[in-house]
Amino acid sequence: MKVAVIGLGLIGASMAKGLLDNGHEVYGVDIDQNAINYCEKNKLISKGFSDMGDILDRCEIVMFSVYPKTMIRLTEKYKEQFKAGTIVTDVSGVKKEVVAKMQRLLPPGVEFVGVHPMAGREKIGAEYSDPDIFKGANYIITPTEKNTEKAVDVLEKIGTELGFKRVSYLSPERHDEMIAFTSQLTHAIAVALVNSDKDPDTYNFTGDSYRELTRIAMINADLWSELFLENKKNLINRIDEFQERLDIIKNALKKDDRKTLIDEFEKSTEKRLTLEK
Amino acid sequence: MKVAVIGLGLIGASMAKGLLDNGHEVYGVDIDQNAINYCEKNKLISKGFSDMGDILDRCEIVMFSVYPKTMIRLTEKYKEQFKAGTIVTDVSGVKKEVVAKMQRLLPPGVEFVGVHPMAGREKIGAEYSDPDIFKGANYIITPTEKNTEKAVDVLEKIGTELGFKRVSYLSPERHDEMIAFTSQLTHAIAVALVNSDKDPDTYNFTGDSYRELTRIAMINADLWSELFLENKKNLINRIDEFQERLDIIKNALKKDDRKTLIDEFEKSTEKRLTLEK
Repeated sequence: MKVAVIGLGLIGASMAKGLLDNGHEVYGVDIDQNAINYCEKNKLISKGFSDMGDILDRCEIVMFSVYPKTMIRLTEKYKEQFKAGTIVTDVSGVKKEVVAKMQRLLPPGVEFVGVHPMAGREKIGAEYSDPDIFKGANYIITPTEKNTEKAVDVLEKIGTELGFKRVSYLSPERHDEMIAFTSQLTHAIAVALVNSDKDPDTYNFTGDSYRELTRIAMINADLWSELFLENKKNLINRIDEFQERLDIIKNALKKDDRKTLIDEFEKSTEKRLTLEK
Repeated sequence: MKVAVIGLGLIGASMAKGLLDNGHEVYGVDIDQNAINYCEKNKLISKGFSDMGDILDRCEIVMFSVYPKTMIRLTEKYKEQFKAGTIVTDVSGVKKEVVAKMQRLLPPGVEFVGVHPMAGREKIGAEYSDPDIFKGANYIITPTEKNTEKAVDVLEKIGTELGFKRVSYLSPERHDEMIAFTSQLTHAIAVALVNSDKDPDTYNFTGDSYRELTRIAMINADLWSELFLENKKNLINRIDEFQERLDIIKNALKKDDRKTLIDEFEKSTEKRLTLEK
């Protein structure tokens, strides 16, 4: 199919190359000419464009790989130029507001289906792109009653082609609840853990556990501050629940209550083991 | 040298094999005959014993690889049988109380030097042992004014032989402050994160970040409840500091304060990057 990938960052360029490898024609769009040059030179795209308006009339799929607010802004600007029958999709990590806005904005006959490829790296830019980051990862489609089976099937097929381990369906609301826990809370914890450290010598005495818990504290501040605020209600609830659970451990320490500690540790061990299967 | 490793669990058996590979004679002691059989059959030790009293007269080094309280109990029981000149050491994750008690208990001429090899796996038992877990890890020696340079040098040499990346020195007090942050707080967070999850579907939607943050929630409940309580004052302080920092993020969300979020993310990114170097 003919696919425009709007935004040639880490995810966009990885998507582009994965699509190209699967026989699609891929037009890459970016305002940064260096990103276009890099992607053309390294054959990550079929051809690059700096203005998405130049190619909307020839695409069957438009995949936005930019920040949510940028996608909304671009869609407002170009909405009259989308060709009827085009499937528009995204890669963003929040869905409820984004999907509703996009479905309101696009003209009749142009369908928006939300997709969240749960993959990434703690680097930004096309030069770190690699379609292998999708291998084994989760791919969530968030259709609404406004979507057709046909469009959803097209996007499911793309997820399978790109090597995602599991394609799942969630409503946009349910997606955002889930992601507040598995992705946003984990990032908030990693950031708070690194920032709570006041000891200049710490890094001489870290083990694997500290490294693993804090890798995602290297975070794209612009993007994630937007994602956090878009999903603030869910995220605040998850932080509260997590802090309550940490209080159980803290209070057990204060009371020398070994039994509660053992209970908490056995519970987490049993639960986490199911993820290893 | 002739080394007795007391306790043939994951760490003890890994230590035993590493020492054997470096030309030492290694006597393995365990109350579990299956562990001894396993270690003898797989050539992780020179010879196994079920009673440490049988070999104390022929060892130059006694390395305890059991829970701290078990080490104290065994030392009380056998203290008269240690040969003068023996170096006694351990592998435990807390030091202040442990080192003080061991140095009080042992008879004159028998020296205790605390060692913390910062390595492990979320498995228990000799059958999961592997001396390669020490490669690239941190090895902390916690000497006191009661230790001789000679004994400390012997243990430093062993750390180097076993392939630890970095041998460091800390006082027992400073060790416990440090470890409360880099190891104990991280485990408390992982446990609380897993246990705070009330959603039965979560595990269908996890990404790498959740997996990495929660691996250590699979935890030896008996051992870690003991380690946490031995170091409770430091650990409670670290939990408080971490929760305060997480509150900064939570409050920024409540106030739609994007600037604070960006500040926190940029701070954590910059700080964590120094660990990548």
